[in-house]
Parts: sequence; C-alpha cells; structure tokens
Amino acid sequence: MSTTTSTQIRLARRPVGEPADSDFTTDTVGLPELGDGDVLLRTIYLSLDPYMRGRMSDAKSYAAPVEIGAVMEGSTICEVIESRAENRPVGTYVLAHTGWQSHGVVPARQTRRLDPAAAPISTAVGVLGMPGFTAYAGLLQIGRPQEGETVVVAAAAGPVGSAVGQIAQAKGARSVGIAGGAEKVRILREEFGFDEALDHRSPDFVAELKAATPDGVDVYFENVAGTVGEAVMRRMNTYGRVPVCGLVADYNATAPREGAEPGPSLMRRILTQSLTVRGFIQNEFVADHHEDFQREMGAWVSDGTVKYREDVVDGLENAVDAFRGLLTGRNVGKLLVQVGEDPSR
Amino acid sequence: MSTTTSTQIRLARRPVGEPADSDFTTDTVGLPELGDGDVLLRTIYLSLDPYMRGRMSDAKSYAAPVEIGAVMEGSTICEVIESRAENRPVGTYVLAHTGWQSHGVVPARQTRRLDPAAAPISTAVGVLGMPGFTAYAGLLQIGRPQEGETVVVAAAAGPVGSAVGQIAQAKGARSVGIAGGAEKVRILREEFGFDEALDHRSPDFVAELKAATPDGVDVYFENVAGTVGEAVMRRMNTYGRVPVCGLVADYNATAPREGAEPGPSLMRRILTQSLTVRGFIQNEFVADHHEDFQREMGAWVSDGTVKYREDVVDGLENAVDAFRGLLTGRNVGKLLVQVGEDPSR
Repeated sequence: MSTTTSTQIRLARRPVGEPADSDFTTDTVGLPELGDGDVLLRTIYLSLDPYMRGRMSDAKSYAAPVEIGAVMEGSTICEVIESRAENRPVGTYVLAHTGWQSHGVVPARQTRRLDPAAAPISTAVGVLGMPGFTAYAGLLQIGRPQEGETVVVAAAAGPVGSAVGQIAQAKGARSVGIAGGAEKVRILREEFGFDEALDHRSPDFVAELKAATPDGVDVYFENVAGTVGEAVMRRMNTYGRVPVCGLVADYNATAPREGAEPGPSLMRRILTQSLTVRGFIQNEFVADHHEDFQREMGAWVSDGTVKYREDVVDGLENAVDAFRGLLTGRNVGKLLVQVGEDPSR
Repeated sequence: MSTTTSTQIRLARRPVGEPADSDFTTDTVGLPELGDGDVLLRTIYLSLDPYMRGRMSDAKSYAAPVEIGAVMEGSTICEVIESRAENRPVGTYVLAHTGWQSHGVVPARQTRRLDPAAAPISTAVGVLGMPGFTAYAGLLQIGRPQEGETVVVAAAAGPVGSAVGQIAQAKGARSVGIAGGAEKVRILREEFGFDEALDHRSPDFVAELKAATPDGVDVYFENVAGTVGEAVMRRMNTYGRVPVCGLVADYNATAPREGAEPGPSLMRRILTQSLTVRGFIQNEFVADHHEDFQREMGAWVSDGTVKYREDVVDGLENAVDAFRGLLTGRNVGKLLVQVGEDPSR
C-alpha cells in the first residue's frame, strides 16, 4: 500500500496574458493505492512546452483545457518506485504524462520504458521526444525541403527550431535561424551550425533577413508568429511551404496585436505566391512516421549530425517562473524542471 | 497584305476600387502585316474573368500587370480570317489570347484549334477551359474530397463554383453552394443540383450555413473571401483543406475591410484545426492534369453530369460595364462578350 504523497501544481484560475504565480496553487496530497497493473512514479524531469499555455485557456484548441483545480498537464521522465506491473519493475525509467507533480500513480501501459544506455533519459521529452518529432515530421512531411532550398525557422535556439535547422541541413537545404539576442545567435552559428543566424531584436532585422535569404524562402517553419513570422512570410517564394506548429509570440495576447497583418492580406499572399500554409500537431504523424523518426533521428543524435541543448531548472517550485521564461524566450534549448534526482547521469 | 483594323480597349490608368469607364480608352488601329506562320483572327467571344482585376493593378501578383496604354489582356474565341500558317486555314475556330479587341494578328502556335462538333466553341473559355480546369484541378488536387465529405464553394453560380459543386458530387461528396440572391440560389438547386444552396445576403446567413453543414466543412474552395469566406472558415473540420484560387470580394478593396479577421486569428485557426490553406493558379497543374481534365470533364459535360451556363453580353463596347458586374456578382454562369458573329451556332 502506498503512503506516498505528491506535491502538485494546480491551475487555480485561467491566466489573462502572462501566467502569474497567483494563477496556480501548490498542494501536497496523498496518492491512491496501486491497482493491478499500476506503477508509482517518482518524477525526475518535468518537460515544459509552449503548448501548455493553450491548455491554461478555455479558447477552442486542439485539446481540452486543463480544468480549474486540476494538476497542470505535462510529460515527465520518471523512475518506478513501486510496481504492480510485471513489465515495469522498480528502478525502471519511463516516459509518462503525470504532469506538474513530484509523484504519480498511473497504469503501466500509459508509460514508455526508457533505456538510459541508448540516450540520456531526458532526451525522451526533447530531441528524441515530442519537440524533435514535431520538427522532423513537420519539416519533412509538410515543408519537404529540397536540396539547395532555403529553410527559415524562428525560436531557433529552442528544441524544435534547433532540430528543424539541423534536419534541413541533413537534407541538403540551407538553414536560416532566428532567435532573440546575441548569445543565442552565437549558439545557432557555433553549436547548431546554422548557415545564417539572425537576431530578431536587431533594429535592422528586416534588412538582415533579406540579406540572409537572397533567393527568398522556400520553407518557413512557423512556430512563433508575431512580427517575425510576418517578416518571413513576405520573403516566401512561389510554391513555398509553411508548416504551422505554434504561434508562441501571440499565445499571451489578450487583444489583437497592433499593426498585425490583416487576414485578407495574408490570404492574398497565399494566393499570389501559391503558398501552402498547413497547421499540424505532431500526433497526426505518429502512426506513419514515428518509427522512422526514432531510427533516423536516433542515428543523427548519436553521430552528432543533430546536436541539442538542455536548460534544466531546479525544483518544481520554480516551474511557473520557468514557464513564463519559455514564452518570452529566456531559455536556450529544451526546458526541463528537475523535480527529483537523476541516478542515470 | 492585311488592311484590317482592330477596335481595342486599352488600359488608360490603374483603377482605384471599382474600374470606371474613364480608366479605359477605345481606339481603332491598323494591324501589322502577317509574317510567316501568323494568322489574322476575328474575335467571336471575349472571356471576362475575375483575375483581370489583378492585371489592372500594379500590386505584386502572380502575373505582370497590363501596362498603361496597352490592350487589356484576355482569352478569346476567334475565327481565322487570313492565314500564313498551314495548320490553321481560313475558317478555323481557335482559342487565342488576343485580349479586349475585335481582331488580332498572332503566331498560329499561340492558338489552339477548336472542333465545333465536339462542344460549343465558347466552352473553351468556360466549363472546358480555364474556369473548369481551375475547379477540377483545385478541387481534386488540393481539396481532395472524400466520399461523404462536405464541400463548400461560394460564387457558386459562376463558372468555377458551379463546376466545383458538380465535380464534388461526381466524386461522392456533399456540395453546398453559396451565391447572392434568391434567383441564383434557385439555379444552384434546380439547374446545378447542389445538395444545399445558400443566399449570403440573407440576414440569417451564418445560422443557415451552420444548418447546411451539420457535420462541419471538410473542403472550402475559396474563390470569394470577404465575410462569406470568414464565415465558412469558422466551420472547418480538423484536417480541412482550403484551395484558394480567388478573393473576388476583396479585389476592389482600397482599404482593409472593417471587421476583417486579423491574420493572427486566421493563423490560429489554421493551427488549431490542422488546416491546409493552399493558394494556386491553374497553370501549375496543366502539365500533369490537363489531359485528364479534357477527357473526364469532356465526358461529364457530354453526359450531363456537369452542367454549365453562359451569360453573353453583346458588343465590345459593353465589356467594361460587364466586367464591373462580374466583380459584384451581377451575372450567372460564364461571362462572355460577343464581339462578332458565331457562325458555328
């Protein structure tokens, strides 16, 4: 019988604009006893991802919002510390979806076993997890970059953007990364090897974007939107492709952005340039492409073709602040909260 | 040696908003002598098409604008009345692109021979011409309607829209047509056989659209935009497809439309519903699909699966006014200007 408690971060009310500390409560609750097939998990890492902002709101989206009073959703890397499932003995590392909490009881079938010898367990929520697959599937299935084409991605120092640029290069395309600040631009060039790296905070950003894309843009992987996205859209070539997987810059928006391109003007651009603008959530591609991803991306990560960075914030109590930073571009690489010790390191 | 003159409508200045008579001049000029391989053509029908509004402006588009002082561009159905090309003897009917004029001299290789026994020659600029192919290629290559899905098209009494609805039905989908006014709605139902027909001028249009699409919209063939387009976009199902071939409602716009959906909101819709929004010009599909079109659409027109209407305006001097009507939805079916006698009728 489990006597373990879990410290949980719950949604207290729906944030207006940027999430505030007061939009959440922290509670410690007793966990239910394990049923047959269940496991008790100790959270090692909590993954923070931009999609979570959508779950905090009740606007129509591709997934139901988190209910008021419920534990915030999220993917976690955990260790099994008590088990009533044969295939998940104590000590097993798993990918789970137990959310913003220190412990959880779930059916073992809702977890995926991780092999710490194959890759660091944290990569299962990063370059070899959902963000990496978002980059892989969106770029290759929708963007379809051809050799010599120009691929642009913003939030390029993040886990999706950095993978997009490196996969584009692996497929023979030119990669142009956009990020905020000189340090991130340096990382794009020196660590991730982008062909061109631009700082969207530069007063000459539009001119620099033009200079970095002398042949226009064939694929714009849209994960930020805002004025940066609009500037890139103006550089699209005929038959350009725009996979849309996120609009982070507008996630906190409470009112229409001043000076935003009107819809009719966007539609005219789509028409006159014969663009393909395609929204997607990575789930759609899992059945057909996740195996290829694991094989191909696993090899690229192993041999250094695709590099990744992690930004690990210590302690569940810092999750809300870290999440705010994620939406404003404070971190570099995959953002993780270290909730408990990682014995596999 | 040709001593024929041609009466020509030329662009005098770029229209602001709706084209005015004073934006054009009518001149009668002598035509050049025929060179080897040339034909002298007498215009029977001039095709009027919405894309021409774009050619009158110098805004960036998929084709260069008509220069000030030049003859307005346009496709024509002509008769060869003098020939220096063996394969186009006098009396041959051809599809040409001689523009808004009564006669023209062109190389025979820029014409396509028409067989009046196969189909009325006027259909070569209508249901069996560019508008029909726009419907066919955009719907089948981008819209890809599946059996039982719902396809919505506006300007449904026009040559593109009426073909879209009927092709959708031929492929097993439900067709919902939108047009302006009770008479057009009647024609959609009774002549073209749409499953549902809606009047966008109805004060209850939005509710009627909802009732007519109880399972949402899988394919929206976008050829009008404006408030009608926005209302349909709000009904799109996940993974919906939106071929964009025209934005007639906004073509005359001189300022952003009041209350138009902002671009960021449109992008959010594309993201949350995993929509594919794809601009296209039919040219793109000619090489791969025009032969299929001629065979399949030819058969559908012959056996009555696809019906069409023509609206023939008499006299080149009425072309500008007829074109204004085209942009405001005055006509039903394919709009033609009868420039000269049609001996094939």
